[in-house]
Amino acid sequence: MKTDMNSWSGADGLSEFDLIRNHFSHVGSRRADVAVGIGDDCALLKVPQGYELAAGIDTLVAGIHFFPACDPEGLGHKSLAVSLSDLAAMGAEPAWATLALTLPDADESWLNAFSRGFGRLAERHGVALVGGDLTRGPLTITVQVQGLVPAAAAVLRSGARPGDLVWVSGTLGDAGLALRLLDAGESVSEFLRRRLERPTPRVELGLALRGIATAMIDLSDGLAADLGHILAASGVGAEIRLPDLPLSPAVSERLAVDADWGLPLASGDDYELCFCVPEHKCAQIATLAKRLGIRLRTIGHIRPEGGLHCLLENGATWNPPRAGYDHFAAAG
Amino acid sequence: MKTDMNSWSGADGLSEFDLIRNHFSHVGSRRADVAVGIGDDCALLKVPQGYELAAGIDTLVAGIHFFPACDPEGLGHKSLAVSLSDLAAMGAEPAWATLALTLPDADESWLNAFSRGFGRLAERHGVALVGGDLTRGPLTITVQVQGLVPAAAAVLRSGARPGDLVWVSGTLGDAGLALRLLDAGESVSEFLRRRLERPTPRVELGLALRGIATAMIDLSDGLAADLGHILAASGVGAEIRLPDLPLSPAVSERLAVDADWGLPLASGDDYELCFCVPEHKCAQIATLAKRLGIRLRTIGHIRPEGGLHCLLENGATWNPPRAGYDHFAAAG
Repeated sequence: MKTDMNSWSGADGLSEFDLIRNHFSHVGSRRADVAVGIGDDCALLKVPQGYELAAGIDTLVAGIHFFPACDPEGLGHKSLAVSLSDLAAMGAEPAWATLALTLPDADESWLNAFSRGFGRLAERHGVALVGGDLTRGPLTITVQVQGLVPAAAAVLRSGARPGDLVWVSGTLGDAGLALRLLDAGESVSEFLRRRLERPTPRVELGLALRGIATAMIDLSDGLAADLGHILAASGVGAEIRLPDLPLSPAVSERLAVDADWGLPLASGDDYELCFCVPEHKCAQIATLAKRLGIRLRTIGHIRPEGGLHCLLENGATWNPPRAGYDHFAAAG
Repeated sequence: MKTDMNSWSGADGLSEFDLIRNHFSHVGSRRADVAVGIGDDCALLKVPQGYELAAGIDTLVAGIHFFPACDPEGLGHKSLAVSLSDLAAMGAEPAWATLALTLPDADESWLNAFSRGFGRLAERHGVALVGGDLTRGPLTITVQVQGLVPAAAAVLRSGARPGDLVWVSGTLGDAGLALRLLDAGESVSEFLRRRLERPTPRVELGLALRGIATAMIDLSDGLAADLGHILAASGVGAEIRLPDLPLSPAVSERLAVDADWGLPLASGDDYELCFCVPEHKCAQIATLAKRLGIRLRTIGHIRPEGGLHCLLENGATWNPPRAGYDHFAAAG
């Protein structure tokens, strides 16, 4: 069966080999630490002494993670952004990426737009595309990113301690709201659409939080699930104040109507960072927010008792409905 | 849309989190150079000083690279084997793998068998599974492997020089014949089936050829295409003698009937190594073959004039039909 697809023998007559050369051989940054890039059996990469390698892999599937007809340039951006967000959450500096792209057909204009979106974000973060695999099949995109972090300096999920304050960057629930509106066939503002389709990986913030944050994660599955991972890995619990969640005007307005805290707590795709900071280091966060021009907000604190407690304005506890909170339940 | 799949809310009620813990958290070898494995945003890995990192990524798609109903244990084996084969072709020692698995449903017995096949091969080669992503969608498997190679010791595609002899390991065309028989609904011997479904990555051979081979590639797309990559990267040509191709009895018999050299030359999935060796080092190859218990055969030589020339027994040139030789044409 493999033989059938080797040649990518579409009407255009271009081989996999041609497609890679045309669309991917010059994507991203050039880096002196790439001894061999695209074009051999493997890439050969140089990790500087005293550094550890951070590696993460993410897949986006058409019809599950994105609409098949969505803008390919945005998709190229997002497929790299979600992986860079994982590096950010470790405090690792992005270095190299590999791309496994499965496509139903060899559509050159699609490939051109996809590689442009991917390449621009790669250049912004100094990432070299060092290898990949192009196969025929249902549209699926897997990106592995690799980053560098000084030995023992990475910020893990497991370091949260009672008394630490819990912080989040940006605003929560925007991508989830965009998705709900699109699913319902309603119009979506440019702001919300960009939050869904062009997420900004918080790379600089993640780097700056080394030595400050005790634990960190990126928000891909929603705050409740992802903070739940920190709590489980650290063996602690947390109390967060729902009125303190940072919300865009669009999400605030929606909440005023339906009071569904599931939107900021449990919808995914925000790609903001959630991190824990000991109280005596919290003064540094304000400086950081100003320097990076990013909104950073404290939403609660870590406590010894397990589980995530969400307080409403009146001090009552808000209990999330069971369905859709699997991660959270598993971690709590 | 992402939100829909977070919970993997199948009838079994298991989350992605549960599935990874149940089936993948203990797969492969434990390695001291894994600072953080599965369970954080990224894995954290230690590359020893003086080594380069070799990284390769490969995707297998149901219906393209394998039959959707094929044995999942074999598929677990093969999905890692094809990536290990890339490391072998660089002379790199396997170290770590990440696995991006897209599945139509959370079938626990399938996952169990898949992870067993993947895990056994990983253990045999000392590979730790350090991360992954489990998503819902059409069955697609992407594996990234990473290996270690002393700085500047990797064997590239670009080092072949006129006068070098061209060698291949094992036998050619077995997987291709198995596929043809299966496609035609005919019976397949256990030998041929294993060659297709359980390929043996030539890791030890690749390591042993450092310092001996001038150029190397693994045979995933067929000898003509893959040797073509060496020729293009090295700026040389080659002459090979078709009667010298190493063939199993099954492929020999088939050739005796239809004289279709496309079977050993252009069918993929053999995962043998093709490599070039200067004449004065060829005596070492016999020793190597004996030590490793692998059949190694010289099939021709490198020459300055570009292109791949295939000689028949009577000295005439065999010209492959154009269709299905895209890679080869691009490289020639």
